[in-house]
Amino acid sequence: MRTISIGLLGCGTVGVGVAKLLLENRTLIQSRLGADLFLKHVADIDTTTDRGLAFDEGVFINDAFAVVNDPDIEIIIEMIGGEGIAKELILKAMDNGKHVVTANKALMASQGNTLIEKAREVNVDLAYEASVGGCMPIIKALRESLVGNHIRSMTGILNGTCNYILSRITDEGSEFAQVLAEAQAEGYAEADPTLDVEGHDAAHKLAIVTALAFGMEINLTDIYTEGISKISPIDIDFARQFGYRIKLLAIAKNDNGKIEARVHPTMIPENNQLSKINGTLNAIMISGSAIGDVLLCGHGAGQLPTASAVLSDIVDIARNIMAGIARRIPVLSYQPEHIQRIPVMPMDELFTHYYLRLAALDKPGVLSIVSGVLGKHGISVKSVQQKGRHSTGAVPIVMLTHHARELDIKNAMAEISALGVVADEPMVIRIEDENNHV
Amino acid sequence: MRTISIGLLGCGTVGVGVAKLLLENRTLIQSRLGADLFLKHVADIDTTTDRGLAFDEGVFINDAFAVVNDPDIEIIIEMIGGEGIAKELILKAMDNGKHVVTANKALMASQGNTLIEKAREVNVDLAYEASVGGCMPIIKALRESLVGNHIRSMTGILNGTCNYILSRITDEGSEFAQVLAEAQAEGYAEADPTLDVEGHDAAHKLAIVTALAFGMEINLTDIYTEGISKISPIDIDFARQFGYRIKLLAIAKNDNGKIEARVHPTMIPENNQLSKINGTLNAIMISGSAIGDVLLCGHGAGQLPTASAVLSDIVDIARNIMAGIARRIPVLSYQPEHIQRIPVMPMDELFTHYYLRLAALDKPGVLSIVSGVLGKHGISVKSVQQKGRHSTGAVPIVMLTHHARELDIKNAMAEISALGVVADEPMVIRIEDENNHV
Repeated sequence: MRTISIGLLGCGTVGVGVAKLLLENRTLIQSRLGADLFLKHVADIDTTTDRGLAFDEGVFINDAFAVVNDPDIEIIIEMIGGEGIAKELILKAMDNGKHVVTANKALMASQGNTLIEKAREVNVDLAYEASVGGCMPIIKALRESLVGNHIRSMTGILNGTCNYILSRITDEGSEFAQVLAEAQAEGYAEADPTLDVEGHDAAHKLAIVTALAFGMEINLTDIYTEGISKISPIDIDFARQFGYRIKLLAIAKNDNGKIEARVHPTMIPENNQLSKINGTLNAIMISGSAIGDVLLCGHGAGQLPTASAVLSDIVDIARNIMAGIARRIPVLSYQPEHIQRIPVMPMDELFTHYYLRLAALDKPGVLSIVSGVLGKHGISVKSVQQKGRHSTGAVPIVMLTHHARELDIKNAMAEISALGVVADEPMVIRIEDENNHV
Repeated sequence: MRTISIGLLGCGTVGVGVAKLLLENRTLIQSRLGADLFLKHVADIDTTTDRGLAFDEGVFINDAFAVVNDPDIEIIIEMIGGEGIAKELILKAMDNGKHVVTANKALMASQGNTLIEKAREVNVDLAYEASVGGCMPIIKALRESLVGNHIRSMTGILNGTCNYILSRITDEGSEFAQVLAEAQAEGYAEADPTLDVEGHDAAHKLAIVTALAFGMEINLTDIYTEGISKISPIDIDFARQFGYRIKLLAIAKNDNGKIEARVHPTMIPENNQLSKINGTLNAIMISGSAIGDVLLCGHGAGQLPTASAVLSDIVDIARNIMAGIARRIPVLSYQPEHIQRIPVMPMDELFTHYYLRLAALDKPGVLSIVSGVLGKHGISVKSVQQKGRHSTGAVPIVMLTHHARELDIKNAMAEISALGVVADEPMVIRIEDENNHV
C-alpha cells in the first residue's frame, strides 16, 4: 500500500485531535482511501506536556522548520494559528512542494490571497475546510456541491461562543457580562473573549465563504463587524414579543453583483430555522439559484469536529497524490482568471428593517419628537411599543421600522441623541425578515 | 477551453432541470470548472412536447442508444428512472467507456451492486448524489467530508411527500386519506402514491446511504419498511401530549458491527432538530465518532434542487476527465476489497421504546388484562393514559413502554388481539428518544 507522510505543526487542542484521528482511525482511513497516512512528525514548542498520545520515538519534536523541510513529508497540517510563524511555515512548506492543510481562519481571512497565489505558483494544494464551521462541509458544499448554482446569499451562525452566550441570555434573562463570566469558567469562552464576542471570528469565516461563493478575492477589511456585548435581556424580551430571536449572524448576499457582507446581532423570525440553532451549535443557510435553501448544522468548533474537517482535507489531497495530480479544484472555487476584486457594499447603503430602542426621558412629547426626526430622515415606522415607566425614570420606546437605509438610521439616531430627550445611546438591531424587501 | 460532451437520457421533470442548468449556467460553470460542458444530445421517447428549452437543431432526439453509442460523448446522465431500460442503457454506456451520472434511487438500491461492479470492470465513474436527498450533499458528506469518522447512525426524513402529509395531519388534525387526496391535487403526491407513502422510496435511499456509511454492499431486501397510511390524528395528538412528533424516519445504526436499517413512522422528542423539519423539506442527521452530529436540510426533490445535485456529479467527473483520471473516490466510499456483505439485524431483534394504542372494549378489567399480557412478555410500561369513553364504545388506552424487544411487542399484541378485549388492530409506533438505551 502507498504510504503518504504527513507533518503536523502545532499540537494544541485541534492538533491533538488531528493526531488522534490519524493514529486511532488509521485502518479505517486506509480502507476508504487505499493508502496509509503516516504521521511522520508532530512539531510544537512544548514537547513536554503529555498530550495523551502514543507517539513513536522521534515523532514529536520542537522544530517546525525541520518538519516542513523533511523531504519525505508530502502534506503539512498547520495547526499553530495566528498570522506570524504559521504563515512563514506554510509558505516554506509550499516552496518545498508540500501540500498544506490549515484551520487558520484569521490567516486565511487576512493573508489568504497571498497563500493562494503562492500555492498556484508552486502547483500545490491548499485546503482549509476546517477554517469555517468546524465539521460542517461548508467549503466543500460551495466549491463542489453547489457548482451549478448562482449563490444568492449565506446566513450563518458561525461563532459558537456568541451563540452560547445569546442562548443563555435568552433562556435565563441574565446580563451579558454575567453569562460571559460563566461561559469563561465553563470553557465556552476564551480568557480574552474579544475575538469571539466582538464578531471578528465570525467575520474571518464570512470573508472566506464570501470569496468562495461570489468569485471574489478574500476581503476581510470591508466586512462590517459588530459583536454581541451590548445585547441586553430587555432587547431579547422585546424581540420575543415581536416574534423574533436575536442571533449573531454572518450575512453575505449577492444582489446582481452588489455584494453585502456583514456580521452583527440580528433579529430573525422565531420560526426561521436558524432561530432553532442554540447553544454552541453553528449553522449556515445557503441560498442558491437552483437549490433554494440548504441548511448545514453542527459543531463549529471543538477538538474532534474540527479535526474531522482537517481529515477530510488530508484525504482529498491524498487522493490527488495517489492519482498523480494536484489542484483538481481551484482553491477559491472559481478559476483564478475569473476571480475579481469586488468591493463590498458600504454599510451605510444597507436597506433593511430595524429595531430601535430608546430610553425616553420623562418629558412630555418625546415620542412625537422622535417620530418627527425619523420622518425627516425618511424612516417609516411599522410599530411602536412604549413601556411603563422604568425605575430609572427613563421609559423604553421600541420601534420597528419599515425598509430603511442604514445611513438614515445612523443620522436620525445621532440627531435624537443630541436633542437631550433620551438617556443612553439608542439601541439599533437589524432585522432579517423572510421578506425583507417590502 | 476543453469541451466535454454530455448526453442526457430522459427529459422529464429532473431531466429538463439538468438541461436548464447546463444551458443557462454554462458560463458560470465554465468559470468554475475551466472547461465547457456541452450538452450534445438529449434523448426522450417524446420529442414533441415543448420543454421550454432552446435546444439547437438535432440535439433533441428519440434514440437513447444513439446517445450512449456516440463516440464524442464522455458523460451520460440517466434521468429515465425505473429499473428496466435505464439499467440497460447505463451498462451499455459504461461498456462504451462513458462515465455515468444517475438520480435513479430505485435502480441503485436494487441493482447498484451490479452497476458498481461494471463501473469497476471498465474503469469509469458512476455518480449518484441526486439519488438521495435532492440538493443536500449527503453522499459527498459520507464519502468525503466524514472520511475520518466511524459513522454511528443516520436518521433521515428522506421522503418529502410523507413529511408534507404528516405535517398537515399534525397542523390540521385531518385524516390521512383526505390529506393525501389534497396533496395529490396540489402535486405533492403522485397519482399512485404507494412508493412514497408506504416508505419504499425512503427505503431505497436508506439502502444506498447505509452501504456507503458502513462499508457494506447495498442491501434493500433486508430493510424493514412501514409507511404512514395508518397514522391517524389521534396518534399525533397523543404524541403531542407526550412531547413527541411523528415523522417517517429512515434510520440506520452501526452498533459495533450490528447494523440496523429501517423505515417507519417514529415518535421523536419535539425538541429534536428533526421535529422542526416540516412540509416537503428533507433532512438527515449523521452521527460520527469525531463530529458528534451534523444535520443537513433542504429540498429533497423538485426539478432544480435535484438537478443541482446532478450538476455537482457532472462537474466532479469533468474534473477527473480534465486531470486524466477516473474513479478517484471509490463508488461506495470504501475500497472494493473492504466492502462486506453484512446482514441487517432482523427487525424482531430491535430494542427500543414503543407507543401502543389499544381500543379497549367496554368491559371491566381490560387494562389489567392488557398489562398482564405485556408483563408476561417482559414488557415494562412507563406510562399509561386511558381516555374517556369514545362514541363507538371503545376506549383508547395508550401506553409508552420502557426499552422492549420488537418480537415481544409483536407477540404481546397478537395475544391481546386474540383475547377479544380490544376492537381493531393495536397501533404500535416506535419511539426514538435521545437516550434510547435506558
